Amino acid sequence: MHVHDYFDDLTRRDWDTGTDGPDGTVRFAVVGVGGFARKAALPAIADGDYAEATVLVTGSPGDVEDITEEHGIERVLTYEEYHDGAATDAYDAVYVVTPNALHPEAIETAAGQGKAVLSEKPLAATVEGAKRAVAACEDANVPLMTAYRMQFDPVVRRLRELVGEGGVGDPLQLHGGFAFEVLGGSRGPDQWRLDADLAGGGALMDVGVYPLNTARYLVDADPVAVTATTRGEGVFADVDEQIAFQLEFPDGVTASFTAGFSGYRESHLSIRGTEGRVELSDSAFGTEDARRVSVYRDDVRAVVDGPETSEIREEFDYFAHAVLTGGEIAPDGEEGLRDVQVTAAAYEAAESGERVEIRYSRE
Amino acid sequence: MHVHDYFDDLTRRDWDTGTDGPDGTVRFAVVGVGGFARKAALPAIADGDYAEATVLVTGSPGDVEDITEEHGIERVLTYEEYHDGAATDAYDAVYVVTPNALHPEAIETAAGQGKAVLSEKPLAATVEGAKRAVAACEDANVPLMTAYRMQFDPVVRRLRELVGEGGVGDPLQLHGGFAFEVLGGSRGPDQWRLDADLAGGGALMDVGVYPLNTARYLVDADPVAVTATTRGEGVFADVDEQIAFQLEFPDGVTASFTAGFSGYRESHLSIRGTEGRVELSDSAFGTEDARRVSVYRDDVRAVVDGPETSEIREEFDYFAHAVLTGGEIAPDGEEGLRDVQVTAAAYEAAESGERVEIRYSRE
Repeated sequence: MHVHDYFDDLTRRDWDTGTDGPDGTVRFAVVGVGGFARKAALPAIADGDYAEATVLVTGSPGDVEDITEEHGIERVLTYEEYHDGAATDAYDAVYVVTPNALHPEAIETAAGQGKAVLSEKPLAATVEGAKRAVAACEDANVPLMTAYRMQFDPVVRRLRELVGEGGVGDPLQLHGGFAFEVLGGSRGPDQWRLDADLAGGGALMDVGVYPLNTARYLVDADPVAVTATTRGEGVFADVDEQIAFQLEFPDGVTASFTAGFSGYRESHLSIRGTEGRVELSDSAFGTEDARRVSVYRDDVRAVVDGPETSEIREEFDYFAHAVLTGGEIAPDGEEGLRDVQVTAAAYEAAESGERVEIRYSRE
Repeated sequence: MHVHDYFDDLTRRDWDTGTDGPDGTVRFAVVGVGGFARKAALPAIADGDYAEATVLVTGSPGDVEDITEEHGIERVLTYEEYHDGAATDAYDAVYVVTPNALHPEAIETAAGQGKAVLSEKPLAATVEGAKRAVAACEDANVPLMTAYRMQFDPVVRRLRELVGEGGVGDPLQLHGGFAFEVLGGSRGPDQWRLDADLAGGGALMDVGVYPLNTARYLVDADPVAVTATTRGEGVFADVDEQIAFQLEFPDGVTASFTAGFSGYRESHLSIRGTEGRVELSDSAFGTEDARRVSVYRDDVRAVVDGPETSEIREEFDYFAHAVLTGGEIAPDGEEGLRDVQVTAAAYEAAESGERVEIRYSRE
């Protein structure tokens, strides 16, 4: 096994094995039009092969005229119109990008209309909300995917193959951290990310889920227990401004993770195994950043600098391709629920000072 | 403040401010002659300005003839002879490099003879032993230093100045790990590092103390609480083969640390603060390795590759200089005791699954 075997033909779409690809596109209703939808998701949809945006759902229809024109949007709906079933002929699938607490009701409405759903992470602000979302899509027999964009970065997909085939031996210990200035740029304190009811928490819910979910994806296992420490003050009194959380996976594998809403940025992930070590950096989790993978084995370090592939475009095309071909969906709603269960356990651990076993019950 | 201000004149001995330096040398009895004494400490003493080795204390006098000749050793003593006070005229200070559990009795004997003591880390295998060692030296009014070689690496000393003067703002979150194959090379399972009674624990006691003590040194604070997870099996059934431990410092600062006795090597330390981030790598904690410091601030990364300075030579010269001049000793025995108190709390946390507050009591 050679490192370069994994990273040759790096950007290949392992999920797109047909010779011609499916006909047509999946038409999306984008539910929630904040900064991420505008600056990241809509351009990625426009850039893709199998997806297009045809409907916007927003509480401020007057504020989206610029992007309506730019992206050829057919209909702009209020939330009330969306929930009432307006213009369902104008879209095939729903992309939910509201504040976390509003995901379940947007997902339930989509499921009731028989639409496939792609929901931003975390799947919900609470375990109960995530369970509702999963149940609604199962009952309606519609696909539900949780939008973990990292899983669609081709560098990360290749890295998972390498780890899964023993590229570092058996994983032993992980480190990871993701932190940014949530109040940076034009973002003031009046944002939903600092509202515990809307967000479900702070740095852990917004950025801590990146090392969490990426680790679960790379080592293909779910954590069984967690300890955690949080802090927050001032405008962060309601949520975790900083969190350090330590996960136990089966067989005693551990992950030492941190997340932050203030202070200098950080974005790294590493896995040490019995036979080697891999690092994802520069930055590990940044939106649409080119990523560096370093693989250490024996006395060799191999470095692969990935291309500036849009993992969000890849994500939309993956989802749309699966919808068009009836293919498998991963990460699904169940995976999104599991991460919310981990975050709930982490907050319980931070509150109690005790190691909390994670309950993945569906009840 | 510029990064290069700290790393100009990098290898200067900030502790050696006299123009000529003291006269003479400190003559050491080296108590315990294992691999570290032979391969690292004795060459470092020989290379220094203020130290020389004149006496060896060993359980196997027949095995040290080669180094006796090479280093011009005057006397070789058995442990019994050492504890009985043989040849005390032949040495001024004692360097204790036995298995951890034997440090206190070697230190007590040295203190009883009025000799200054440099003891390897950790100071003892138990809190009780560390307290005995500190009390013996205080009662005899002799200097006691804990041999944290990292504190004498000039790169680490400069980094402490940078952090102490706000080079990363206020520290927020640390990550660190140190792991190596304790069974690698010619080292089999019959070594004291795998004996809980002699070592006081496993990976945490032997290598986990490096990120722990280096972090305390760099941020100039003591942790207040800890959670931890350990695993060990087979020849490691008695001790922690792997440990992940999460420390809380005052003001909610956290450190996410790991240590390991098996698997691929790891050696890194980073501090994320309100205004910047620093990383120590390549390798952060390896013996006599050249270290790389990366300082991130604003959008700039400054990298300093340190020289291959022997931090062990620096350590012996620092200690000997302090003994010759009556200067201050740091890290002292109290600091060594504190680290043993942290490790005891970490093991208690791993056993109970609970956050354990660290007790720094001297009682």
